[in-house]
Amino acid sequence: MSSERKSDNCLGWAARDESGFLSPFNFERRAVGDDDVSVKITHCGICYADVFFTRNKIGTAKYPMVPGHEIVGIVKEVGANVGKFKVGDHVGVGTYLNSCRDCEYCNESLEVHCSKGIVMTFDGTDVDGTPTKGGYSEFIVAHERYCYQIPENYPMELAAPLLCAGITVYTPMVRHKMNTQPGKSLGVIGLGGLGHMAVKFGKAFGLKVTVLSTSMSKKDDALTLLGADRFVLSSDKEEMDALEKSLDFIVDTASGVHPFDSYMPLLKPGGILALVGAPSEVKLNPMSLIMGMRSIAGSAVGGTKMTQEMINFCAEHKIYPEIELIPIQYANEALERLEKSDVKFRFVIDIANSLN
Amino acid sequence: MSSERKSDNCLGWAARDESGFLSPFNFERRAVGDDDVSVKITHCGICYADVFFTRNKIGTAKYPMVPGHEIVGIVKEVGANVGKFKVGDHVGVGTYLNSCRDCEYCNESLEVHCSKGIVMTFDGTDVDGTPTKGGYSEFIVAHERYCYQIPENYPMELAAPLLCAGITVYTPMVRHKMNTQPGKSLGVIGLGGLGHMAVKFGKAFGLKVTVLSTSMSKKDDALTLLGADRFVLSSDKEEMDALEKSLDFIVDTASGVHPFDSYMPLLKPGGILALVGAPSEVKLNPMSLIMGMRSIAGSAVGGTKMTQEMINFCAEHKIYPEIELIPIQYANEALERLEKSDVKFRFVIDIANSLN
Repeated sequence: MSSERKSDNCLGWAARDESGFLSPFNFERRAVGDDDVSVKITHCGICYADVFFTRNKIGTAKYPMVPGHEIVGIVKEVGANVGKFKVGDHVGVGTYLNSCRDCEYCNESLEVHCSKGIVMTFDGTDVDGTPTKGGYSEFIVAHERYCYQIPENYPMELAAPLLCAGITVYTPMVRHKMNTQPGKSLGVIGLGGLGHMAVKFGKAFGLKVTVLSTSMSKKDDALTLLGADRFVLSSDKEEMDALEKSLDFIVDTASGVHPFDSYMPLLKPGGILALVGAPSEVKLNPMSLIMGMRSIAGSAVGGTKMTQEMINFCAEHKIYPEIELIPIQYANEALERLEKSDVKFRFVIDIANSLN
Repeated sequence: MSSERKSDNCLGWAARDESGFLSPFNFERRAVGDDDVSVKITHCGICYADVFFTRNKIGTAKYPMVPGHEIVGIVKEVGANVGKFKVGDHVGVGTYLNSCRDCEYCNESLEVHCSKGIVMTFDGTDVDGTPTKGGYSEFIVAHERYCYQIPENYPMELAAPLLCAGITVYTPMVRHKMNTQPGKSLGVIGLGGLGHMAVKFGKAFGLKVTVLSTSMSKKDDALTLLGADRFVLSSDKEEMDALEKSLDFIVDTASGVHPFDSYMPLLKPGGILALVGAPSEVKLNPMSLIMGMRSIAGSAVGGTKMTQEMINFCAEHKIYPEIELIPIQYANEALERLEKSDVKFRFVIDIANSLN
């Protein structure tokens, strides 16, 4: 019986207040239930959400807060009913670790849109009523449905960013059928953790990829490292004008304020801008949408089925995020650098070798 | 030979300057070319574009300007190559009367998105280089491709608003498959010329229609005259909260500034707001799009094939716009009233019986 199991002690790094400063913190993980998997964490990616939530930018922070929702590790224990995983498997845990499993969205494997709301992997409320604690920690316990198989041959440290950055861009790309129309044109705005994955997926889908950036320093990485077909500095009016009505899709990963009225005209009639970044506001002239029947479509991660599909796609096509592997002791500096977009392209914490 | 034909003299009402004030005006229509149809105008709807353009709100006005692009009339002459129409046929002419007929969009019957640009029915530039002149006039000459058959049993005065208001809301409704999902929920923002047609189409498509309005004075019309299922005052926070995540689609016809962050949460996950009104700006929190993968999709009228399909659909399902029939002499007052949204629901000018 799960209720008889003893809770483990778990070491993590937590923010204690709105400064967001992280330091070691011991806490109790809940017992492993019959449908749960307990995962010894080896790696955790650093997402911008980790900055945002630890500093209480939304106003709902519960401290101490252990951030991290790009989690990869090794199964160390499974509940009695678990069929999908066995001890020793490589698994991932993403941005949410529970939902009602009973509504129309859960039934369609769109759990992220669960009618009753998802349980976020950190700063949410777990089944036992305690605040959820994320992946900057030794291990995590989650219902097996919200754990993903990481193929044995996929490097675990590279798998971590797939769990949020990867699925965040993959979901709208598949939803808007960018994966079944090779030869079409994709624009990617912003070249950070999300943007660089959008370029990689775009190339794997056979799209012609144009990176749109405010910084010329990204040009070499875009073309050489990531294999984009074209790089356009978004402040170069002449180049932007030449792009008018040339793109079928845009994946917009920029989180700073940016001028939508400059980007929308780049889309062909019927073109779609998939919004996955989080600028402070979206503001544009309605004519940018109306003329050319263009759309702005929001998207946030994906359901469990699509997440597993994305991981498998990455393994099959050897799509690997570009990362900087860091020890947990560097986490505070990494968060500072991330806020300044000073990372190529995702920090991943080497939990296994540094958290002790 | 078309070049040998004598141009006719045509009487219209024109604006002479940015006051937009209309008065009688004689001008020459171009000769009827081999592919052209000459239409004796019987009725012309008054669209908000007539206010907007005659007062030079865009800054491109060419005076004298004869407005009007919801045109219905009777064929009085056809060119040598015209096969679609014969003298005496009831026809409509909409917001554009030419395009390149050679690009990918024209070839897909999406002429409104022609790569080389459409020729607008008024204040555009005709094939002979002269400014196009619209439907507040005795007759019009257009290439047959941009003329539509009005079924004999469809009242001509009621057909006029279909050519802009009708097709403007029909196009996104069909594009986003609202016509093939009976039982789904539609919200309609704004209850003017466009909005009242969206309600009628919605009911014909079998949707559950909720009218969202800022004015309680619209309630009775919405429910009784137009047959909407529900009316919600958008300032009533309690009723708006109760609608959260309940709508599959919204057709947004409001042209005033309005709070998108209040309307987007009414959509279910994956829901689409089709933007067809022209507020001064679109401004919202990106989370209104990202959470629930919601979209804002612009749309502007439709191609020739869909326009004819829409007219036929209206005839088959006895969908008739609600109009106020007025003489041309009332046009200036009508434009004033339209600017104040004081019309139920579309003014139509009885050209045949008042212009002389």
